[in-house]
Amino acid sequence: MWIKAESLQRGGAFKMRGAYNRLAQIPATERHRGVVAFSSGNHAQGVARAAALLGMPATIVMPADAPKVKLNATAALGAEIVTYDRHNESREAIAARIATERGAPLVPSFDDVDVVEGQGTAGLEIAEQLGRAPTRIVTPCGGGGLAAGLALALPESQVFVAEPQYWDDMGRSLVAGEILEVPADAPYSACDALLTRRVADMTFGTLHAAGAKGVWASEVEVRAAMRFAFKLGLVVEPGGAAALAAWLAGKIDDKEGTTVIVCSGGNVDPDAFADVLKGQD
Amino acid sequence: MWIKAESLQRGGAFKMRGAYNRLAQIPATERHRGVVAFSSGNHAQGVARAAALLGMPATIVMPADAPKVKLNATAALGAEIVTYDRHNESREAIAARIATERGAPLVPSFDDVDVVEGQGTAGLEIAEQLGRAPTRIVTPCGGGGLAAGLALALPESQVFVAEPQYWDDMGRSLVAGEILEVPADAPYSACDALLTRRVADMTFGTLHAAGAKGVWASEVEVRAAMRFAFKLGLVVEPGGAAALAAWLAGKIDDKEGTTVIVCSGGNVDPDAFADVLKGQD
Repeated sequence: MWIKAESLQRGGAFKMRGAYNRLAQIPATERHRGVVAFSSGNHAQGVARAAALLGMPATIVMPADAPKVKLNATAALGAEIVTYDRHNESREAIAARIATERGAPLVPSFDDVDVVEGQGTAGLEIAEQLGRAPTRIVTPCGGGGLAAGLALALPESQVFVAEPQYWDDMGRSLVAGEILEVPADAPYSACDALLTRRVADMTFGTLHAAGAKGVWASEVEVRAAMRFAFKLGLVVEPGGAAALAAWLAGKIDDKEGTTVIVCSGGNVDPDAFADVLKGQD
Repeated sequence: MWIKAESLQRGGAFKMRGAYNRLAQIPATERHRGVVAFSSGNHAQGVARAAALLGMPATIVMPADAPKVKLNATAALGAEIVTYDRHNESREAIAARIATERGAPLVPSFDDVDVVEGQGTAGLEIAEQLGRAPTRIVTPCGGGGLAAGLALALPESQVFVAEPQYWDDMGRSLVAGEILEVPADAPYSACDALLTRRVADMTFGTLHAAGAKGVWASEVEVRAAMRFAFKLGLVVEPGGAAALAAWLAGKIDDKEGTTVIVCSGGNVDPDAFADVLKGQD
């Protein structure tokens, strides 16, 4: 089994791949208008970092009560931060207004062809580093941007999407043949990067056409996977460990061929990580 | 600044490089006799792993009270473990007796040309991955095997050896022009992988001839470096973080050129790592 450690990617997650590819499509003459995105997580930093590399202004709409560490990290990349009250304001509306005012494109976190194709560069790298396409690839899945990108980049590989227990909407949708949402009463999961209530037509359609299959991991399985990755020298956040968790739990038939598991991110609070290391379950 | 993450090497440390290179020099007709080594740490696993890859028997002399996790990990690689009482027996004598009885070579952890040259492959990789030799390279130093190997592999780079405070015998030796030992009353350091009381003529001589310089890091600086590496997604053990610690503390003049810092190992007890993450100093 091979691990693709996107936790070691710039910004600690795969997100910059898609953001950079999206921003790189903007003609040089329009770059001065900048870009707009909303996110409380890794996508915010991905867009801010890509914009900085391309010399573009970036405006990121983030909840006022987002962790200081994420607000500061995004601001440190040179982005303008616009905060909103997550109980009384719509981040979509705020971002759309700013985008319209400035003539700047809104960069979605997964529902965008250029973003999905950018995430797919992780798949191209896997094939290059391995010397061939793997038999199967197991990847964490929130909105499905990374998973769809991998399916496009590695059409000969069987893709498995791994989701947190009760948040396995992509997996259930793939079985049903239509998009099913996460039930409103789904319990909270530590996999904060994967808590998307509804995937996009494009990511679902791509994965469905590719014959992708879904697996899920429990919270206990995710913590076990984080401890396993630790022994390999890798810091992996809960959502980033979902695929490894499902594999360790024996949910993937890997008796034949080569298996690649994507650890998609490593941005985890030190205290939370320490608690997992000290835990026994 | 670039990090060479030997914590991600097989076995979680650079040690397999030297062990494999030493064992690979043994003629095929003599391999059935196996090899002998003594170590309570990463070298034991390096030799056991290299022997397994080459299909050779390995006998490792380890203290009876070594951590179960290290005894088990070495045994799991197929090595025969011979334990000794570290208060009343000499591991050198036991290992020498076994080596003589079996006609099997003893593989030292650093005082050996093939071991040093094997560790130097980390330097060749650095130049290949960077596309050039770096201006300077900062590496943790215990017996000096890795540092000497890097100096041989990268003759155009300035080598800095980083040691724990009070255990900076290589650094002091380089200034004095002769080997100085660690004083008997040197306080314990968490950098267990670097607690060598006397370096070898060969490692010292190589580094002295190469114009290497010494820096040291305090325990507080080492813990800060472990937290810094954590944010990059890397699990680094205390000794493995000594070079990063010295660099973060501003002890290396890096205003010009390219700096590569070696994080030499990541084998750290989860509880100890969690305590560092939760600590504030």
